[in-house]
Amino acid sequence: MNDSHTVDLGARAYPVYFRTHAREELGARLAALASHHRLVVVTDTTVDALHGDALREALASEGVSPTFLVVPSGEGSKSVEQASRLWDAALSAGIDRRTPVVGFGGGVVGDLAGFVASTLLRGLPFVQVPTTLMAQVDASVGGKTALDHALGKNLIGTFHQPRFVFIDTGYLETLDERQRRSGLAEVLKHAAIAEPALLDAVTDPGVRAGDAVALRGIVERAVRIKAAIVVADERETGLRMVLNFGHTLGHALEAAAAGALTHGEAVSLGMVAALRLSERRAGLSPAASARVEDALAAVGLPTDWGRRLDAAARQHLGHDKKSRGDRLSVVLLQALGEPAVVPIPLSEYIETLTALAAENARKTP
Amino acid sequence: MNDSHTVDLGARAYPVYFRTHAREELGARLAALASHHRLVVVTDTTVDALHGDALREALASEGVSPTFLVVPSGEGSKSVEQASRLWDAALSAGIDRRTPVVGFGGGVVGDLAGFVASTLLRGLPFVQVPTTLMAQVDASVGGKTALDHALGKNLIGTFHQPRFVFIDTGYLETLDERQRRSGLAEVLKHAAIAEPALLDAVTDPGVRAGDAVALRGIVERAVRIKAAIVVADERETGLRMVLNFGHTLGHALEAAAAGALTHGEAVSLGMVAALRLSERRAGLSPAASARVEDALAAVGLPTDWGRRLDAAARQHLGHDKKSRGDRLSVVLLQALGEPAVVPIPLSEYIETLTALAAENARKTP
Repeated sequence: MNDSHTVDLGARAYPVYFRTHAREELGARLAALASHHRLVVVTDTTVDALHGDALREALASEGVSPTFLVVPSGEGSKSVEQASRLWDAALSAGIDRRTPVVGFGGGVVGDLAGFVASTLLRGLPFVQVPTTLMAQVDASVGGKTALDHALGKNLIGTFHQPRFVFIDTGYLETLDERQRRSGLAEVLKHAAIAEPALLDAVTDPGVRAGDAVALRGIVERAVRIKAAIVVADERETGLRMVLNFGHTLGHALEAAAAGALTHGEAVSLGMVAALRLSERRAGLSPAASARVEDALAAVGLPTDWGRRLDAAARQHLGHDKKSRGDRLSVVLLQALGEPAVVPIPLSEYIETLTALAAENARKTP
Repeated sequence: MNDSHTVDLGARAYPVYFRTHAREELGARLAALASHHRLVVVTDTTVDALHGDALREALASEGVSPTFLVVPSGEGSKSVEQASRLWDAALSAGIDRRTPVVGFGGGVVGDLAGFVASTLLRGLPFVQVPTTLMAQVDASVGGKTALDHALGKNLIGTFHQPRFVFIDTGYLETLDERQRRSGLAEVLKHAAIAEPALLDAVTDPGVRAGDAVALRGIVERAVRIKAAIVVADERETGLRMVLNFGHTLGHALEAAAAGALTHGEAVSLGMVAALRLSERRAGLSPAASARVEDALAAVGLPTDWGRRLDAAARQHLGHDKKSRGDRLSVVLLQALGEPAVVPIPLSEYIETLTALAAENARKTP
């Protein structure tokens, strides 16, 4: 199978390739983009240990000398300090304006490498090679780059579209089950906002067992959904906000949990809250709501959001980057596949969620 | 006079206003762009002392509360550390995605403020209010932002187009004569590559005396030239390189002089060398060459480049960002207003300049 999808952003259109165990092809495509047979690979210690040598060999057999810049695994590397270290290392390695930067890893590596690529010599060619399910279905398309700041996640960043995205689901075989489930939360989000039939495909036994070819099918469907939305709204001024379904509360829960929840787990909880709110405010049917919640539960994601809506989570909601003044822009569903962005005052949003959580607690003691 | 010029970059088109003593209009235009009556002004200690209060008053009378972020005057502020400090201060001030950032000062402030605006919350609206002649004619149009790095100037940066540029030549009345001359070097560069008649306008007595209205005329002509070139080549992939006339050697001389030459003085020297090289390699007539050199000398800019081509300058040439491998892309003139980008091997470029400098030394002992 040789599938690819073009993200059609006019002059900056780029292809996304969907493959399984295609290391040689990746080497050849990177070699074609390299400048003076050179490129920079940004990765983390975990991915480097698992897959770094295979990429080095694939590049060597194409005559390319990569400069590997390895950062510690984990969200902590999305820092100004780490970006500054990469600027130094890349410039010291003697890059020029055509030297590609490859983000080889999960979402943290992609965000960091993209930021560094976008800010070196006013923008170097960038390639995304996402190695986690979360990064493959979500972060690899959209052109967002980011660093975290003491005041919040992703507060520093740019838009910088990649030259191509190479998604190889073979990398997912080394992913632990919790990380894989976390990625499935984003796939289910795409399904809920745009393609309800994908809800059933995600609960397929092959996908749940982590089969790389089965996963490729759902990754491709999820990426096509996201790409269509990004193309319609590259700079996130309107439509693209629907991709934040489950993320308003999700981000707050993730921040409040301080590492105890993965991003996908937090988004799963946020989606269930958003489903309840959608029943109350947007006319979503309880049956449709239950269909999404059941799919989340079926792949092992948490759904008990009510008990996590504590003081810390409420405080983080007040810091939401998408708030304008004290109004939040919340994504609700009118029906499966029919999202709407609803402005809700922050205080009303928190009160309604608190009431819904109390109701929920009475029903499921 | 209410002149403005639209820099027509399609969806990101923006106006450049040409004014003299128009503080109230600036206040009104910034107020119209402000979000929740708020905006961020980045400036330096010198400009803040001279013009900060006037801007604060103009904004206050429009009901706008600005957050002033003041950096030390001088190239040293184009640093990662200063950008990081501005990120912290702007985020702490409670910006949102619509909060405008205003670069109020010379080229250093514009480059730094533009970089910070382009990287906060993935890009805030940016306004350029250039207060030096150099910034008004050169840095304010083009969308380039930059920080310096230990390995070279402007190595970190982005492209980020402003919402508008407000050029008020009233600010030039507080400029010292050396800074004004430095700006005239860029005006003469634009004249040489695109509009020979502007060479004569620059040597007009009113311009040389620093009259704000006379200066507005030549600033407007220089900006229109630059804007036309930028529009044709936003990302500096080809045509825009002609703006580097005089800059290949100029940058090297400026770096080697370590502060003893202003940017404009270094560019003046670089242009004279490029004129000589153009006579030798591109068929430029000695009369045309002399016309540009005479204009540079008439406004008091240095032209004795040959004696400055020392070992330090040669070494800096080897680090030129525009070199691909060991070839330089050098801008030469075939005639006044007819530039050409000529690839020349670095070693050949240095040898030819050295020979030309020796010839020159024999002629003018």
